[in-house]
Amino acid sequence: MTTACDLLLTNAIILTMDERYTRYAAGAGAVAVTGDSVVAVGPYATRFTAKETLDCGGKALLPGLVNAHTHAPMTLLRGLADDLRLDVWLLGYMMPVEREFVSTDFVRLGTGLACAEMIRSGVTSFADMYYFEAGVAEAAATAGMRAVCGQTVLKFPTPDADSFEDSLALAREFIIQWQGHPLIVPAVSPHAPYTCTPEILRACAQLAAEFDVPLHTHLSETLLEVENSRKDHGMPVVPWVKRQGLFEAKVLAAHCVHIDEGEIRTLKNAGAGVAHNPTSNLKLASGVAPVVAMLNQGLNVGLGTDGPASNNDLDMFSELHLAAILAKGMSSDPTALPARQALAMATRLGARALHIGHLTGSIEAGKRADLILVDLAALHNSPRFERDPNGVYAQLVYAAKASDVTDVMCNGRWLMRERTLLTLDTQDLALAARDYARRIDAFLIEREQSVLQKLIAIGGAVEQESFEVQVKARLAEDAKVLEVIGGEAVAVLRSTRYHEYDTYFLFDDPAQGRLRFREDEIMDADGEVTNTRTRLTLTGAEREQKAGSVLLSRSRYLAPATHTLRFYREYFKPSLEREIEKERRRWLVAYRGEEFYVNLDRVLKPALPGYYVEIKARTWSRRDADNKAGLIGDLLALLGASAKDTVKEEYVDLVA
Amino acid sequence: MTTACDLLLTNAIILTMDERYTRYAAGAGAVAVTGDSVVAVGPYATRFTAKETLDCGGKALLPGLVNAHTHAPMTLLRGLADDLRLDVWLLGYMMPVEREFVSTDFVRLGTGLACAEMIRSGVTSFADMYYFEAGVAEAAATAGMRAVCGQTVLKFPTPDADSFEDSLALAREFIIQWQGHPLIVPAVSPHAPYTCTPEILRACAQLAAEFDVPLHTHLSETLLEVENSRKDHGMPVVPWVKRQGLFEAKVLAAHCVHIDEGEIRTLKNAGAGVAHNPTSNLKLASGVAPVVAMLNQGLNVGLGTDGPASNNDLDMFSELHLAAILAKGMSSDPTALPARQALAMATRLGARALHIGHLTGSIEAGKRADLILVDLAALHNSPRFERDPNGVYAQLVYAAKASDVTDVMCNGRWLMRERTLLTLDTQDLALAARDYARRIDAFLIEREQSVLQKLIAIGGAVEQESFEVQVKARLAEDAKVLEVIGGEAVAVLRSTRYHEYDTYFLFDDPAQGRLRFREDEIMDADGEVTNTRTRLTLTGAEREQKAGSVLLSRSRYLAPATHTLRFYREYFKPSLEREIEKERRRWLVAYRGEEFYVNLDRVLKPALPGYYVEIKARTWSRRDADNKAGLIGDLLALLGASAKDTVKEEYVDLVA
Repeated sequence: MTTACDLLLTNAIILTMDERYTRYAAGAGAVAVTGDSVVAVGPYATRFTAKETLDCGGKALLPGLVNAHTHAPMTLLRGLADDLRLDVWLLGYMMPVEREFVSTDFVRLGTGLACAEMIRSGVTSFADMYYFEAGVAEAAATAGMRAVCGQTVLKFPTPDADSFEDSLALAREFIIQWQGHPLIVPAVSPHAPYTCTPEILRACAQLAAEFDVPLHTHLSETLLEVENSRKDHGMPVVPWVKRQGLFEAKVLAAHCVHIDEGEIRTLKNAGAGVAHNPTSNLKLASGVAPVVAMLNQGLNVGLGTDGPASNNDLDMFSELHLAAILAKGMSSDPTALPARQALAMATRLGARALHIGHLTGSIEAGKRADLILVDLAALHNSPRFERDPNGVYAQLVYAAKASDVTDVMCNGRWLMRERTLLTLDTQDLALAARDYARRIDAFLIEREQSVLQKLIAIGGAVEQESFEVQVKARLAEDAKVLEVIGGEAVAVLRSTRYHEYDTYFLFDDPAQGRLRFREDEIMDADGEVTNTRTRLTLTGAEREQKAGSVLLSRSRYLAPATHTLRFYREYFKPSLEREIEKERRRWLVAYRGEEFYVNLDRVLKPALPGYYVEIKARTWSRRDADNKAGLIGDLLALLGASAKDTVKEEYVDLVA
Repeated sequence: MTTACDLLLTNAIILTMDERYTRYAAGAGAVAVTGDSVVAVGPYATRFTAKETLDCGGKALLPGLVNAHTHAPMTLLRGLADDLRLDVWLLGYMMPVEREFVSTDFVRLGTGLACAEMIRSGVTSFADMYYFEAGVAEAAATAGMRAVCGQTVLKFPTPDADSFEDSLALAREFIIQWQGHPLIVPAVSPHAPYTCTPEILRACAQLAAEFDVPLHTHLSETLLEVENSRKDHGMPVVPWVKRQGLFEAKVLAAHCVHIDEGEIRTLKNAGAGVAHNPTSNLKLASGVAPVVAMLNQGLNVGLGTDGPASNNDLDMFSELHLAAILAKGMSSDPTALPARQALAMATRLGARALHIGHLTGSIEAGKRADLILVDLAALHNSPRFERDPNGVYAQLVYAAKASDVTDVMCNGRWLMRERTLLTLDTQDLALAARDYARRIDAFLIEREQSVLQKLIAIGGAVEQESFEVQVKARLAEDAKVLEVIGGEAVAVLRSTRYHEYDTYFLFDDPAQGRLRFREDEIMDADGEVTNTRTRLTLTGAEREQKAGSVLLSRSRYLAPATHTLRFYREYFKPSLEREIEKERRRWLVAYRGEEFYVNLDRVLKPALPGYYVEIKARTWSRRDADNKAGLIGDLLALLGASAKDTVKEEYVDLVA
C-alpha cells in the first residue's frame, strides 16, 4: 500500500466537491499528490510521508474551477464596444474586427491573457470555442491549463477558413494533432444551429463521434433563435438539432436560455452538458436560463463566463455569485440554488458538462491534481461562523472574490503560488495586447469616418460603378403613360408594381454620400402584396453629368439589407433621416430597338400632387449614352412630358 | 482669483460625473483641492500652483462612490445564515442574534469593518440604518467617511429601545447631537411601513422635517408587503405612506422593488430618493426594481449594497456591474442602463438620493473633495480602447473590480493611499470580529440544541405551567352527550365549534417535547367558518400524573403562530411530522358548582370511527384536583362513557 507522495496539503478546510460533498474541517484531513494526480484525500492521507508538505491553514482547498464556456482570445476585444444591441455589437464590431485581426498570433496572445486572468480567479479547466483553435490549445498548454478546445465551423467564411469544408478539414486536422495530449482535449464547434446548415451539424457530429471528442456549440441563446426555429423547422432548437444527429456526439451546449422541460429531458437523455452563462445572458439581454429546472432533472450544468468581449471578464467567482442569486431572484425562492450547489456547477458538474468529469471537477484519489487554495480571512469575508457546516460554501459563493485565490495547481503543476503566476509573463502579454488595441482602435477610427467603410465592414457590399442615362418628369395625369405602355409604340417585356418605403440617411459631410434603406412591397396586378425585399444603397457623389438631366456616371454600393432599419440607424448614426413612400408601376420596355425601364410613381409620403415618370437605361459608352439620351427624350415626349416638366432633383431632395 | 491650492491631481482621466458628464482625457485637465473642497477642475486647474502634486497617470479619477443603503454593523453577521427564506433568516436568525448581541460596542466594531471594506472599494459616502446609530456615526467619522446615519424606529422593542417612544426620543437626541458635523448627517429611520404604525411614520416625518434631516426607510421591498398594503389599506405602499405624511420629510426609500408608474411619479414629485439594491433583492428573492422606468422619470436613484448579512459584501463595483447587466436582462434591451448612467447612480444620483447632492457625488468646484483613483491597467481590464469616449465608463462598470481602487479621499483627507488604509487598523478589527463570531456561534449552537430555546428566540413564547385535570373517552355515538349538554344537569356558559388542523413536529430526542402548530377554523351554529386563528404549543414531558387518566401537571409553552407552517418547519427542522384534523364542538359548562370544558371531537384525518369526548378543568391544588377529578368521573358517566372507554393517549399518539 502506497503511503508516500510527492506533496501533502495539510490543515486546509477541504471541500472535495465529490458526489457526497465530503468535507474535512481544518486539520481533519489532507490531500496527497503524486505526479499529476491526487493519490489520497481525507484523514487517511494525513499519514502519508511526503517529499514536501504545504501547510494550508486558514484556507479552503477545493478543486480547480471549470469555466464551461468561453472564447478566450476575445480578451483582446474586451471593452471594444458595449451597451449595444446584439446585432450591432456582433455584426458591426466583433465580426469586422475579427475578420481583420484574428490570426494564430492573435489567439495565442489573447489566450495567454485569458489564462492569466483565469488562473488568478481559480480556474484550472475551460471550454473554448474560437478560430485558429490550435493557437488556443498551444497557449493553454503553455500556461499549464486544462482545456477543451473547439475549432469553430460556420456556414460563412471565417478568419481561418474560406468555406465550411475548409473549417471541417481544419477541425479534423486539429483533432488528430492534439488527441491524447495530457491537458488539451480537442473538439469541434459548429457555432450554432442558425449559423450552420443541417449538413454542417451532421458532419461535425460525425467528426466528433469518429474521434470520440466533445462537440461544443451554442444552443437557444436568444428568443429570436427559438422563434425562427419554430417558424423555419416547426419545432424549437433542441429537437431540431437532435433530428440533425447532433447528439450522436458528446455535446456541450452553451446558453440554453430558452428551452422547455421537454428539451431539458432531451438534453439529459442525450448525455449533453450545458454551460450556463448568467453574466453574458444578462448583459446581451438574452434572458435567464432555467438552471434550477435543469439541475432538478439531473443535467450536468456548468458555469461559464462566455467570451470576455460580452462579460467583460473571466471571473468565475463573480459568475458563481451571480448564478446563485439570480436563480433565487428569478424563482422568487431564496432557497433556490444554494451556495453548495452553485459551487458544484463551477466544479464537478462543469467538468462533467465538458465530458472530462473522469479527470477533474472534484478532489478524489485517481483524479488529476487540479486544486486551488482560497484565503478565507480577507476582510470582506470576515468574520467566519462555524455553526452551519454549509457556511463555508456560502462564504465562497456570496463573499469571496477571485483575488482571494492564493494558489492554483493544474495536473500536479503549480500555476500560481502565493498570488504569483508561474507560467505566464503578464507584463509581456499586457504590452502586446496594448499594441493590438492601438491597431484595432486605428482600424475602427478610420472606418468610422467613412460610411462606405462601415458598409463594407458589415459585409456584402458590392460596388456598382453605374453608368446610366436617366430622366425624370412631373405629370399631372397618368392616363397618357398608361395609354402608351398599353399601345403599339413600345413592347412591354416585364411589368411590376411596388409600394416602396425609403429611408435616407444623410450625413453632415456630403462627401459620405447618402445611404438608402429601401423596403419594397411587391404587388400583383390586383395590388395585393405578394412579396417584400429590402435593399441598402450607398449613393456617392455624381461623377459625370451631361446637360439635360441625363446622368452618366456615379458610384453606387449595393448591399443586401439583411438587418433591420434600427440596426443600420444605430450603426451608421446618420445626422438626418428622410422618409419617402411611393407607389411605383415599373415596366421594362423595348423602344426602337433599345431597352428602357419606365417608372410611373406617385409619391405618397410626403403627399406630392400628380405623377412622376422616370426613364432609365444602362449604358456602356459615351456614344451609346448619347444615342439612348436621344431615345429617352423622344419616349418622354411620347409619354406626354415636355422638357419643362423635367425634374433634376432626386426624390430625397425634392421633398426636403 | 485663486490659483493656489493644497493638492493638485494631474494626468488622470477625469470623470467629473457632473450633469453634463464632463470628462477630461489624461493630461487634459487637473483637479485642485484646498482644505476639504475641490476648488477647480479641468484645463484651468492645471495652471494652479500646489503645495503638493500627485501624478495620477494610468488611472481614472472620479467622485467617491455613494452606497445609498446599508446596515453597516451587520458585517458582524455576514455569512451567519444563508440560503434561507426571508422570514426564517430574519426572524429565526438575524433578530434573535441582534437582540442578544447588538450594543454600541457591536455597532462601532461592525461599522469599522464596514468602513474598511467600503473605502477599499472606492466608497466615500454611505446611508446607514441601524440601532445605536450614534455608534455608527462615531465609527464612520473616525474612519473619515461621510454618512447619512438613520436611527431606527420600529413598533417592536429593539436592541436599543423598549418602545417606539424610546426609539423616537433616541432619534431626536441623536439628531441634536450630530447636527452640523462635517461628515455625519443624522437621520431618522422608521424601519418600514409594515413594521411601523401610522403614528410612528407621522412622528418620524415630523421629526425629520423639524430638523431638516433625511428620513431613511424601506419601501415596497417584497410583493407580500404590497399585497398586504392593498388588503389592509386598499392601496399600494407609496400612496399609503404619502397619506401618513411621510413625504413631509426628505425621504430616502430603499428597495422600491414593487412600485408602479404612479408611485414612481409620487416619489418624484415628493423629491424622494431611491436606493436600488440589486444583489440583496435577488439574493432574498424579492425581485428586480424598475430602475429604468424610475430613471426615465427623472428620479434620483442611487445604488446600495444593503446590509452585508444579505449581500454578503459591501462591494459597490459588483453592485454597479449587476445593476447595469440586470437592467438589460430584465428589459430584453442590451442598451438599457448603459455604463455611464450606472456610474451616475453610484455617484451623482446616489448623492442626491441621500439629499447630500450639494456636498458630493460629482467633481465640481465648491463640492467636497470626495475623490477616488482607479487603476485601469489591471490585467482583467486589459487592453484599453480609445475609440469610444464612453469606453472608460464601460471599463469601470463591466470589468473593473473593487481591488482596482488605489486611492480614496473624503472631505479632503486621504483615507487610502496606494491600497493602504490610513484611518483604520484592519487587524484589530478582524480580531475583535472573530471574537464576536465565536460568541454568536456558541449562542446559536446552544440554542439549536433546544426546541424550547429556538421557540423563545423567535419571540412571544410564554411558559404556562399547566395544572389540569383531564379525561378523554371514546364514544360510539354523540346523541347522549348532546342530550346532556342540552339538558338540566349542566349549565352551558359558552359554546363554540371548530375545525382544527394540527401539525405535530416530533424530534429524535423526546426530551425536546412536541411542538404543535394548530390552525382553528371557528364556525358559527350553521357550520360556516367565521374566523381562523393559529397557535403554537410546545408540550414538555408530563411532570405528575395521577391514576385514572387525570393529569395534574406538565410544562407548556404557548406562542402566537404569527408565521407560516412552512416557516416553522424550516426553522425547527423536525425529524417527523404528524397531521391531525378534527371537528370539535366545545362547551364551557358549570357542573355542580365547578367549571369544565367539554370537547366533543370527531377525528377526520386520519378518519377514526365514533367520537371522543374530553373533559378538562384548570386546577390550583392537589385537593382541588382531587375534587374536580371526582366530578369529572361523574360527568363522564353522565355523558355515557364508562371507565373502560377512557383513552390515555393523546391524539397524536392515538394516530401513530
